[in-house]
Amino acid sequence: MLDRDIIQGRGFRNVADGSAITGFQFDLRNPNYRGTSASLLEGVDVIIDGELIPKHVPLWSLQGKTYTLDELRSSTGVRWQLDETATITVPKPGGLSAGLHDLEVTAYLRRPYFPPHISTSPFSASAKGVIVPSSGQGKLRYGVSTYSYSGDIYTSMTMEDAFADIADMGATGIEILGEANLPGYPDVTSDWVDNWHRLLDRYGLTPTNYGAWVDTEMWKTRSLSAAEAAAQLEVDLKMAKRLGFTSIRPKFGVTSWDLDPHPVWSEAVQRSLDLAQELDIVICPEIHAPTPINHPVTQGYLDFIEETGTKHFKLLIDTGIFQTAPVDDGHEGFEEGKKRPAHLEALAVPMTDLVAVLPHVHFIQSKFFEIDDQLNDLHIPWQEIISTLVDTGWEGWLSSEYEGRREPYRGRDQVRRQHALLRQLEMAKTKASNPPVPQQQ
Amino acid sequence: MLDRDIIQGRGFRNVADGSAITGFQFDLRNPNYRGTSASLLEGVDVIIDGELIPKHVPLWSLQGKTYTLDELRSSTGVRWQLDETATITVPKPGGLSAGLHDLEVTAYLRRPYFPPHISTSPFSASAKGVIVPSSGQGKLRYGVSTYSYSGDIYTSMTMEDAFADIADMGATGIEILGEANLPGYPDVTSDWVDNWHRLLDRYGLTPTNYGAWVDTEMWKTRSLSAAEAAAQLEVDLKMAKRLGFTSIRPKFGVTSWDLDPHPVWSEAVQRSLDLAQELDIVICPEIHAPTPINHPVTQGYLDFIEETGTKHFKLLIDTGIFQTAPVDDGHEGFEEGKKRPAHLEALAVPMTDLVAVLPHVHFIQSKFFEIDDQLNDLHIPWQEIISTLVDTGWEGWLSSEYEGRREPYRGRDQVRRQHALLRQLEMAKTKASNPPVPQQQ
Repeated sequence: MLDRDIIQGRGFRNVADGSAITGFQFDLRNPNYRGTSASLLEGVDVIIDGELIPKHVPLWSLQGKTYTLDELRSSTGVRWQLDETATITVPKPGGLSAGLHDLEVTAYLRRPYFPPHISTSPFSASAKGVIVPSSGQGKLRYGVSTYSYSGDIYTSMTMEDAFADIADMGATGIEILGEANLPGYPDVTSDWVDNWHRLLDRYGLTPTNYGAWVDTEMWKTRSLSAAEAAAQLEVDLKMAKRLGFTSIRPKFGVTSWDLDPHPVWSEAVQRSLDLAQELDIVICPEIHAPTPINHPVTQGYLDFIEETGTKHFKLLIDTGIFQTAPVDDGHEGFEEGKKRPAHLEALAVPMTDLVAVLPHVHFIQSKFFEIDDQLNDLHIPWQEIISTLVDTGWEGWLSSEYEGRREPYRGRDQVRRQHALLRQLEMAKTKASNPPVPQQQ
Repeated sequence: MLDRDIIQGRGFRNVADGSAITGFQFDLRNPNYRGTSASLLEGVDVIIDGELIPKHVPLWSLQGKTYTLDELRSSTGVRWQLDETATITVPKPGGLSAGLHDLEVTAYLRRPYFPPHISTSPFSASAKGVIVPSSGQGKLRYGVSTYSYSGDIYTSMTMEDAFADIADMGATGIEILGEANLPGYPDVTSDWVDNWHRLLDRYGLTPTNYGAWVDTEMWKTRSLSAAEAAAQLEVDLKMAKRLGFTSIRPKFGVTSWDLDPHPVWSEAVQRSLDLAQELDIVICPEIHAPTPINHPVTQGYLDFIEETGTKHFKLLIDTGIFQTAPVDDGHEGFEEGKKRPAHLEALAVPMTDLVAVLPHVHFIQSKFFEIDDQLNDLHIPWQEIISTLVDTGWEGWLSSEYEGRREPYRGRDQVRRQHALLRQLEMAKTKASNPPVPQQQ
């Protein structure tokens, strides 16, 4: 689907000629109610961070070819369809810096069916676009969880849009929730699976972690037995394998405010370890606020690893546990004037606790709620987290999990901001840790 | 796609058991971020126009089967997927009256992965739903133009959603804009055309009118010749035929504030009449504000009909010409403090003028801008229009053309309101014109 806004969320990037950055690009959807012959286009004024680039300067790419305004005017058979975007390329040596930029555009379309004096119609739009730098050569790999798009998927985004969004920001990993993203779950058609693999290829994405649930209180009258819980795990382990994932996170029912998992968890996982080994999938319990690292629940998981000696059960860290400020906006569960739910409080787990368990951490869900226009995260201390990960040499996925307000398109924009922020922090930290050797004069 | 709102726009209707109306229905999308086993559902409180129906009463239809709350609780393998709606049926003898109703719902879902004391989560939503009465046995046929969904199609609706919306309100005609709705126009794949015909079958819709353009000022340097204009008409006549339409409206470029069509129009249409006859498609110029019926432009069309004696050139009336109040909201072209564009003024064409040309009117675009919660249209005098059409025995399509503010989903809701209003007016008028014969005591 296209974004409702004329300026599309995807497509905002610098462009290069060889190694030289020569300008930037963005995508527009056709603002009129019909598609148009390109000969009826009259250019686009662009204002980037206050600087005007007049309408005859930008280049237009339509249906795979690029045109100057004069070429558009004399064109035949070139069209800007209603269901296709135009890519606008703006020359600007050096391009734009990583982060947010104010973009205003006014596109001009002639509409011959309007009286001649008003037939050239201006269509204006503005947006804050996020330039995401490419990820460095470090050990951190960047992905996105489709959870970030909750509320958008199936209403304004298809699954392919999620792939396209993730690839557009230069991320390479995709994390899904089985029971959210698989039509017909647990019975998924082979057509759907074939298309999934086609999309992975097309967008260059790697399946990372597969979110699953073991609803131990599925029925009010009794809990699942360990055998039933293991059967649920089996369904998801096999599904994850079929789709190419290398870990699953089963969320067991819990029995306390501290998120103690239902006691069947250990026997259910124990029964699943052979299958996990056979499929080479790591089962990852999630360490999630309000449960910190230094806590009997986490210790129970570490004991299980030690007792079984398995390589197929490791921790998944949700970065909400590092929160240094409470979340007081429109988050689900927060009610004005009422006590804040525990998982939105600032748990502020110290980095030393993270360092202690990092050898057992397989995956990191980069949970966050809001990153402002200056790329400051209001709740999660990313500088400390990234520094710790780089210093310890941890290798693995950081998978964006946006959990802020569910306004349309907000998750998509916020995830871009997070990728711009995290990659810059990693690059800065890596540079500081490996200063260039001073050259002899 | 599903509506962003939990309460879906489609699906609000009365339900009958035989000839007795026994209640009403509506559709919900799953408000959680994952699909759920139906055994985790804990009912839905419904408040309709202030009346509470408690959560154990409504029935749930999921994946094609209907369940009581107790049946859901003990169910196995029944699911409320994230991409599927639940239909809620509320018993209410006599059902709901045509028009708007205040609907509030709170659905309860158990989430075992939340601490037990808060695991039953309430999800609340409210909406104004429109009950649309079925159309009567009169001569007016009700359709919808996809123009009503401008801004929604390709962003939150697919073409199939347009079909589904139209059918859901009991309308039977679909009008499209070729250059808006045909991917790849003018080269449409046979797969697309096959699917178009499948959708017509599935939703029981009849193709009505096909909107086309003849952009006489396609290039700034010269106008189209009559031959080029006729070639454009040929493309659209053939495309319309391929899709099953019975009329096309070509919008020629205009040369004046009065919407005088470019002079090539008559020769271009003349050259196309044989083809129109062969394909049995009526070419319809649009009578559109600010040009009234009693005007040289309209007279020119009538003269053409008389001179050629053709049956394949007739008028299309856009009901904006009957506007009795100006449009001062966020309509495109309206700017606060500036002179109102002529086509948004109240032209208030009298019904006598309509009556005079009705024999030459093939199609009516039911243009409108806003219908309020009491089903009053703020601008268009529907009672007069419908009375006139019924009195004269005019037979044909009324095709909704919503042109008000382009807020997401607004057009879809407004079109439902229009259908509720127009059909009620037609039924009331027909009843008044044909009073039942008093029975002998």
